[in-house]
Amino acid sequence: MASTHGTLFRISTWGESHGGGVGVVIDGCPPRLPLSEADLQPDLDRRRPGQSDIVTPRKESDTCKILSGVFRGVTLGTPISVFVPNTDARPEAYSEMETHFRPSHADFTYQSKYGVRNWEGGGRSSARETIGRVAAGAVAKKVLHSIYPGIEILAWVSRIHDIASDVDPATVKPDQIEANAVRCPDDRAAALMTERIKAVRSEGDSIGGQIDAVVRGMPPGLGEPVFDRLEADLAKAMLSLPATKGFEIGSGFSGTWQKGSEHNDAYVMREGSVHTASNRSGGVQGGISNGEPLLFRVAFKPTATIAKMQSTVTIGGEESRLAARGRHDPCVLPRAVVMVEAMTALVLVDHAMRQRAQDLLPR
Amino acid sequence: MASTHGTLFRISTWGESHGGGVGVVIDGCPPRLPLSEADLQPDLDRRRPGQSDIVTPRKESDTCKILSGVFRGVTLGTPISVFVPNTDARPEAYSEMETHFRPSHADFTYQSKYGVRNWEGGGRSSARETIGRVAAGAVAKKVLHSIYPGIEILAWVSRIHDIASDVDPATVKPDQIEANAVRCPDDRAAALMTERIKAVRSEGDSIGGQIDAVVRGMPPGLGEPVFDRLEADLAKAMLSLPATKGFEIGSGFSGTWQKGSEHNDAYVMREGSVHTASNRSGGVQGGISNGEPLLFRVAFKPTATIAKMQSTVTIGGEESRLAARGRHDPCVLPRAVVMVEAMTALVLVDHAMRQRAQDLLPR
Amino acid sequence: MASTHGTLFRISTWGESHGGGVGVVIDGCPPRLPLSEADLQPDLDRRRPGQSDIVTPRKESDTCKILSGVFRGVTLGTPISVFVPNTDARPEAYSEMETHFRPSHADFTYQSKYGVRNWEGGGRSSARETIGRVAAGAVAKKVLHSIYPGIEILAWVSRIHDIASDVDPATVKPDQIEANAVRCPDDRAAALMTERIKAVRSEGDSIGGQIDAVVRGMPPGLGEPVFDRLEADLAKAMLSLPATKGFEIGSGFSGTWQKGSEHNDAYVMREGSVHTASNRSGGVQGGISNGEPLLFRVAFKPTATIAKMQSTVTIGGEESRLAARGRHDPCVLPRAVVMVEAMTALVLVDHAMRQRAQDLLPR
Amino acid sequence: MASTHGTLFRISTWGESHGGGVGVVIDGCPPRLPLSEADLQPDLDRRRPGQSDIVTPRKESDTCKILSGVFRGVTLGTPISVFVPNTDARPEAYSEMETHFRPSHADFTYQSKYGVRNWEGGGRSSARETIGRVAAGAVAKKVLHSIYPGIEILAWVSRIHDIASDVDPATVKPDQIEANAVRCPDDRAAALMTERIKAVRSEGDSIGGQIDAVVRGMPPGLGEPVFDRLEADLAKAMLSLPATKGFEIGSGFSGTWQKGSEHNDAYVMREGSVHTASNRSGGVQGGISNGEPLLFRVAFKPTATIAKMQSTVTIGGEESRLAARGRHDPCVLPRAVVMVEAMTALVLVDHAMRQRAQDLLPR
Repeated sequence: MASTHGTLFRISTWGESHGGGVGVVIDGCPPRLPLSEADLQPDLDRRRPGQSDIVTPRKESDTCKILSGVFRGVTLGTPISVFVPNTDARPEAYSEMETHFRPSHADFTYQSKYGVRNWEGGGRSSARETIGRVAAGAVAKKVLHSIYPGIEILAWVSRIHDIASDVDPATVKPDQIEANAVRCPDDRAAALMTERIKAVRSEGDSIGGQIDAVVRGMPPGLGEPVFDRLEADLAKAMLSLPATKGFEIGSGFSGTWQKGSEHNDAYVMREGSVHTASNRSGGVQGGISNGEPLLFRVAFKPTATIAKMQSTVTIGGEESRLAARGRHDPCVLPRAVVMVEAMTALVLVDHAMRQRAQDLLPR
Repeated sequence: MASTHGTLFRISTWGESHGGGVGVVIDGCPPRLPLSEADLQPDLDRRRPGQSDIVTPRKESDTCKILSGVFRGVTLGTPISVFVPNTDARPEAYSEMETHFRPSHADFTYQSKYGVRNWEGGGRSSARETIGRVAAGAVAKKVLHSIYPGIEILAWVSRIHDIASDVDPATVKPDQIEANAVRCPDDRAAALMTERIKAVRSEGDSIGGQIDAVVRGMPPGLGEPVFDRLEADLAKAMLSLPATKGFEIGSGFSGTWQKGSEHNDAYVMREGSVHTASNRSGGVQGGISNGEPLLFRVAFKPTATIAKMQSTVTIGGEESRLAARGRHDPCVLPRAVVMVEAMTALVLVDHAMRQRAQDLLPR
Repeated sequence: MASTHGTLFRISTWGESHGGGVGVVIDGCPPRLPLSEADLQPDLDRRRPGQSDIVTPRKESDTCKILSGVFRGVTLGTPISVFVPNTDARPEAYSEMETHFRPSHADFTYQSKYGVRNWEGGGRSSARETIGRVAAGAVAKKVLHSIYPGIEILAWVSRIHDIASDVDPATVKPDQIEANAVRCPDDRAAALMTERIKAVRSEGDSIGGQIDAVVRGMPPGLGEPVFDRLEADLAKAMLSLPATKGFEIGSGFSGTWQKGSEHNDAYVMREGSVHTASNRSGGVQGGISNGEPLLFRVAFKPTATIAKMQSTVTIGGEESRLAARGRHDPCVLPRAVVMVEAMTALVLVDHAMRQRAQDLLPR
Repeated sequence: MASTHGTLFRISTWGESHGGGVGVVIDGCPPRLPLSEADLQPDLDRRRPGQSDIVTPRKESDTCKILSGVFRGVTLGTPISVFVPNTDARPEAYSEMETHFRPSHADFTYQSKYGVRNWEGGGRSSARETIGRVAAGAVAKKVLHSIYPGIEILAWVSRIHDIASDVDPATVKPDQIEANAVRCPDDRAAALMTERIKAVRSEGDSIGGQIDAVVRGMPPGLGEPVFDRLEADLAKAMLSLPATKGFEIGSGFSGTWQKGSEHNDAYVMREGSVHTASNRSGGVQGGISNGEPLLFRVAFKPTATIAKMQSTVTIGGEESRLAARGRHDPCVLPRAVVMVEAMTALVLVDHAMRQRAQDLLPR
């Protein structure tokens, strides 16, 4: 559904960048889960604008309020409504957008689809929409930790523009990721990335890059054959994030240069359990998790809104030029890390509930 | 849903590789569409085994029968049930699979998930499941052609192993794709690919590669903001196909090496309509089509089932070795081209119907 | 879905009777519909407590706020979030409910299902939840009026306890329904009903009755064969309202005393169109509307929460007694009329959009 | 969805009365359930035409074949496809239907909705469609018996035309229901009903009546607040059956003549568990089961297709007359009993799986 995600753990986000605020309704959350705003705020803080000197300076504390579904500190099993007001909207910076389409932004496509659009800010296409996802993702993570105590969902910036990093998915730790504003757990690369982002911003330009993710402590058996394969749902979840252009799992595109005999993951026994000697599958086979770490990567394009002068057309069909004002991220990746984690958690908790429902009979 | 795809044009596939057959139920198809088996068979023939000397020799004509939903040559608007029997199943070739897990195949994950599996052939994870998708895709294409007369959905093999091709998505024609058994519209590359596939098969090994796709004549306005972005639904659809490991749209991963000023697609007026000067967006912006051609690519890994001896474990937890018998594709890509087209058509027809439903009021 | 209704015009309600408030997110609404809070408030006022001297005296203005999805007076096509705060919650009146289950109320079943419940007020089972439905219903009515200018959706109280009324569904007018606090368009009966409700309240007791509904100006062709028959979706919608125990369409239960030759609605031509001479079908045949008025009836039981002393058990499993305090309706029907209309509108707008989507090809 | 029922235990039926056959695809069934055609055939036999001298004489054995989803006698967790061919179609008996609309049948509404219809027999509106539901219902019953060993789902004919019966829902047994062709477990009434059905048939007319149902051994906690209340889903399921006009649960319409103090079900302790002293609630409160027996009733109108001459109009808009040929049930209730049971089982198994999914955390 357009603004709803999930079969059993269902979230519906709402809100525009300039309007009364943004929020999410979470339906289907298990009851009796200890929960308060304090569980959501840390991830919202990792997403919020103004958190460092390499992101947009828009001033939003993004303080959330839970309006329903929680009673005396635990979830009721009924819908959890989370609300975050918009406090620093500046529609005046967008006056040209009423008539001009920003290149590679959603202005033209929204106008084509709906015949109307909120041109004060990005409207529904703004990254502010992801506040609801990140809040819901924090709830999903808490449910997952309750049922799989050893699970760890980690994402990080692995490359910005042409600056690559060296990170081991098997051992990377959350505090290494949070150690710098870029969220790249390779400090040397992070320093170069920071410098590059600042340089690009001062040019009025933007850059993109790649985010990598791992889920360690995965249970086997999650995911469905055919349409709702785990990697298919992850691909959809990632490509639903703003500015994404690609997804790959395990060996991804590079694995297509190998032969089957090189690519296959041999099974081995380890401590009495079935494991694979390598993990080119990225933790899924036939759409279902095999208990090895999930490994995937997401491509984020350079931010579309830039201060440099660009060619475009007007809503009246005249060729024109446009240089964006307003406050924008020169690079979305540092703030997108927590979005990737949130979407991963939302996909996993939904599949965990689906598997629990179907696996009814004694083994 | 596990075996159901689509919100309004909904297909439900069923069947295992070894069993009574495979099929699909299509619900929500528009009424009054001229339709018969003759509309489905050409695409089923492009998918079927035994079609050339570079695919699996399993002998299946894959002749389909429409059991419902069509009356006197037109669709009724009620469910269309399509059935294809399995005629050349050879379960005896799979006797080791009862106890041995094929590396990088779905044997172990199905066993983990369900506690049981049909080990005669690939069961539900077999590519025979895609018969239902291809049949439904042929119906979807016919609906799309009725409402967008100029639409063209084309996929082709762009690379096999390390053999790349040179194809222009703006001009490639269906008969160029069908001109050779590989379905690569660059004849020189196709010849090398054919040779490579045969060589790999004689080694008892397998190879993968990349399929590219284009949709020309796209209407603007298809796709939804947030979760059901057009590229998100395409990514899910492609990653739901067997053996896929990656998806990218437009500039994809390579676009992340560019700056915004290099990457953005400037708007220009052409013959009185809004167009983009370049198409790094791949035809979508903010999750919604902009009327430019859709451009995307899918990574297919080398076939997991190979004749070479491999290390594995048994269902009883003992390390062992396995060399597959049975009849398998050394390379799935030539047969996967039509699957990519089918999933593309299914995503597009569903979004076309959704857009038509919501766009109720006069403009 | 638990708190979500609709396939294309989807509403998700949230909120408890005692908590931050209640609300609804409407996704899939057509864009370009003129809309403001002023369109929603009249129906919310018809639902709100304290509106007359025969309903609960809880003081809530139920003033709504639209937080998203509307821009400069028209809908954007994106989710419309509507919020109504709770301002007159009095949890102290519910202290016994922490330990005692109210007979025929949802206290025990919520506790059984979730292992936890919000016992301050009715929680999620409170009629306050219907605020979201009524707000969304007002939007649905406006969409329906845009596409079917002559459509009229009317519900009214036809019987309270044993006081029946005499109303002609073919001619009843909205102002006749709103002419008295009971919402019974038969003034003589309404006066008796009012008296009865007051008498019952003074006894600390409660009463139920029947609400009738008609939709005039119905288009033919709405509804789906098989599971989503129009009457099936209406039945579900009505039985999803608090305190409902029965639904019938057209001749309903009484028609089962007739023979086919007495019951069948003969077709006749009227002003060049196909009509039926009688309307025992209630406007649907085979699950699909035939263009005649929809006619259906809903049974509402007497309010479960009463001031009289009743036998019950405690959460600890001890037999006990309970007389409810708090503010409650002695009879829910006057406020339920607008809920019946809202659910009717929600069912119809969803089917209208579905039909528009499937009816793609030229006739 | 039009032809799909269920959130987790999902069935998709297909087929017309005159065509290749009818069937169902069941997706989401728990794996490892022992299952074969022998589990489905008894309920199919209770539904099939020609089973006695008071139903339609159409000769169909309705022998089913499971085409997928079962391996070596147990379910795989993948879609189960069940197929029943049409063997005794006689389209020649329907030649007038091409041009004439049968009063109170779906001919006119299908034509209005789709602009086309299969007029050989009832097409998709035929009761043959319910074969898929009955087959799926048999699977649902088996799953329910596996997880709630004491559950009993029983339906019976409680009234035909004006002949009522005397049956105690607390004690009625399956063999009493199956003891006569009418499926009324009151032998005296059953004899009168049989006589009446035969008399009406000889007049070329038809009759309806009421089916009652009970579910004993119900677990508490099934059903969802708000839209998917258990009684709402049951109401929808029942009103989705052909020829139904009404549904009531517990005290139903008659309970609306009582005061709250008379109607409420007092809680009592019995053998250490919470129970109710009466069961006017019909086993549900606030949309959720309370562990008492489910009690509900369904109204079935007289069969629309009758041999008597009736007034109607043609597809060309001319008034005309029509007396149906073809083979029809003079009274659908004896065959509808198993349909009511099947839909009940389908609703319950789906809610059982949903509850299991959400109730994740330790109590």
